[in-house]
Amino acid sequence: MATLVMKFGGTSVSDPDRIRRAARRVAESRADGHRVAVVVSAMGHATDELIELAGQVCRTPGRRELDALMSTGEAVSAALTAMALEDQGVPARSLNAFQCGMRTDAGHGRAKLQGIDADLLGRLMDAGSVPVVTGFQGVSDEGLITTLGRGGSDTTAVAVASALRVQDTGGCCEIYTDVDGVHTADPRLVPEAPKLGAITYEEMLELAAVGAGVMHARAVVFGQRHGVPIHVRHSQRPEPGTMIQRETPRMESIAVIGCALKPDLGRVHLQGLPRSAGVQGQVFAAIAGKGVLVDDIIQTEGPQGVDLAFTVEHADLPETKVAVSEVLDRLGAGRIDLEVGLSKVSAVGTGMRSHAGVASRMFKVLGDAGVPIRNISTSEIRISCLVPKEHGELSLRLVHEAFGLELGEQVTLARQLGSA
Amino acid sequence: MATLVMKFGGTSVSDPDRIRRAARRVAESRADGHRVAVVVSAMGHATDELIELAGQVCRTPGRRELDALMSTGEAVSAALTAMALEDQGVPARSLNAFQCGMRTDAGHGRAKLQGIDADLLGRLMDAGSVPVVTGFQGVSDEGLITTLGRGGSDTTAVAVASALRVQDTGGCCEIYTDVDGVHTADPRLVPEAPKLGAITYEEMLELAAVGAGVMHARAVVFGQRHGVPIHVRHSQRPEPGTMIQRETPRMESIAVIGCALKPDLGRVHLQGLPRSAGVQGQVFAAIAGKGVLVDDIIQTEGPQGVDLAFTVEHADLPETKVAVSEVLDRLGAGRIDLEVGLSKVSAVGTGMRSHAGVASRMFKVLGDAGVPIRNISTSEIRISCLVPKEHGELSLRLVHEAFGLELGEQVTLARQLGSA
Repeated sequence: MATLVMKFGGTSVSDPDRIRRAARRVAESRADGHRVAVVVSAMGHATDELIELAGQVCRTPGRRELDALMSTGEAVSAALTAMALEDQGVPARSLNAFQCGMRTDAGHGRAKLQGIDADLLGRLMDAGSVPVVTGFQGVSDEGLITTLGRGGSDTTAVAVASALRVQDTGGCCEIYTDVDGVHTADPRLVPEAPKLGAITYEEMLELAAVGAGVMHARAVVFGQRHGVPIHVRHSQRPEPGTMIQRETPRMESIAVIGCALKPDLGRVHLQGLPRSAGVQGQVFAAIAGKGVLVDDIIQTEGPQGVDLAFTVEHADLPETKVAVSEVLDRLGAGRIDLEVGLSKVSAVGTGMRSHAGVASRMFKVLGDAGVPIRNISTSEIRISCLVPKEHGELSLRLVHEAFGLELGEQVTLARQLGSA
Repeated sequence: MATLVMKFGGTSVSDPDRIRRAARRVAESRADGHRVAVVVSAMGHATDELIELAGQVCRTPGRRELDALMSTGEAVSAALTAMALEDQGVPARSLNAFQCGMRTDAGHGRAKLQGIDADLLGRLMDAGSVPVVTGFQGVSDEGLITTLGRGGSDTTAVAVASALRVQDTGGCCEIYTDVDGVHTADPRLVPEAPKLGAITYEEMLELAAVGAGVMHARAVVFGQRHGVPIHVRHSQRPEPGTMIQRETPRMESIAVIGCALKPDLGRVHLQGLPRSAGVQGQVFAAIAGKGVLVDDIIQTEGPQGVDLAFTVEHADLPETKVAVSEVLDRLGAGRIDLEVGLSKVSAVGTGMRSHAGVASRMFKVLGDAGVPIRNISTSEIRISCLVPKEHGELSLRLVHEAFGLELGEQVTLARQLGSA
């Protein structure tokens, strides 16, 4: 008897009809013989509506009361889901963060989970009941309500699954959402991109970082740390989605598992920076001070001093320029070049670790098609090329095809690297 | 420095604008030097909307999950009220039933309060913060969310006031609502009826029972038991309302403090019931089985056996008739007469205990005006006459005038009973 944690996101519980459908799904899993706990997000736009209300009551809502306010969204959907389950003959009990001992630190709006009363959940399930836990929220040591921030409900679900040790029962954490799983590329850009049956935590994290937004990285990291398999699947369709899991021997025999495109990037190129220590620190501290996230930093040394290049979201370029210019003025050295209209195409795969030739194949296929590569960055399991925006989607399709990704997990290493 | 509990009902926090006004009111009380705790109801129709949602999710929502669902309504208004207070420079903290240790029994939908963590409230107030407590809800020993049922938020407020021992500080429990206090009669029927500055718990309870619905009886009983003065006042107007409190010597020198009209009553008259024990029990058990509330039972014995008369709401007559007829069939004795279109006019006053002549004056003024009295019932501090509906409002005005109630608390005993 496997233990499953079934998590339903905002779109999967956005109205009474969808809540009833989610409950049916839970009833089916129980009928299949599984022990089930449920985690729910707030209904559709409930959180946005609460935030809007807060804005009408005061100028700048404090984080603490905003958390107390927002936590009601999941409490509503948890109670409704429990009602829908009982209506279908499945005993159920909604549990808010107080009731299931969902402890966090005191970081309002971005709290970190510290523990869950797994005993209570276990007792309820032993008694034949389905616990329906509010996602996204917790209680601090001082007894204050906290929320976990973006990706919070997914993280709650994985944490509940970890506390229940689902992996030891052959179970997993199921994330029900409005996509059918993880594809080898975004199917809106590469229609033939197949859904993957499985992917490693690391691959999922790399793909998420370079633009494939199926699941928030935070929950994946939590799953990776605790070894919880995460099954991402569509809430309205019966077929399996994608299992995010530890590496298996089969996975090592594929070099590239997927690719992704991150559009609308801008490149900042600083030339002639002094060689003195601490210069980089000053530059990136100034940028971080504006709340801008920096991607793919590359440093080289030329005859005129240090060259530093990095990318930011297109929309963040103006603020970045202001921040960097101030630093250059202070240093009395260096000059700044901006380039807009760039996209980043990336290939990701755990198998890259043990197989050479992926990078060269990727550069070759882009070069043969006349796509200029503006920047290259890599991790152990990822290769990214910055290309002009107008070549972005073509580059994605070229890379997808170069590694035979239309074959999905059926692709062989020979097909991926044979002609490299 | 008096401690005040300020309770804002659903209409007083029905939208962001009213929540800001309620917060201003709290800020003013603090500026006047008071220690303040706040209790709030759910915003306007929030509870109704949640119940409607539940009805869309399942056929018959269970009481337990319905309580969990409904409790979110007060959590929303508490958080918003705390935000509005902080926006006006008043430190505040919303507290749900878990956070302020609002313990109840396990009676979902009609739970009874058993205790509150007054220490936490005291510590917050000592630290200069205003606790904003969710009304209407509690937590059972099993950690389940309960709701208190009708009049619940008022009861929470009085219980918080009692726990904080406001009466020992010269403070009270302020109930902010959409009426300006308790009048000597309903001002819609008797325009000259003045607002009372003070009234005893018992008078308020008697008036509530005979049709003056300013506050739910439950909270008044709680206040009476614990000696908490309750100040009923208008949320949008600055002037004081009515203080519900223990009897004072001044009050004893008035015989009648107010009067009320309860319209749309029906009278059931059973004649010729057998004299055997247990007959009354059978009759009223059958009526209670239909969920009908019975008023003013009068029993007499005639030559044909026992006569029993009582009143019920007009709308409950058909069900009452069915229930009673079944009993008479079983007994094989007695007959039933129904009379519809009746109203009950009542005079109430603690001073009646020590002053005779109130009843005779009331009967005389009705008799002089040609109003037929169908039934008379009394308590220690109340006299009620059942009259034909078409004479109801006239009777109320006659009684109001007979006891000089247009003078309010300025009336003298001589004026009330002088010409009796």
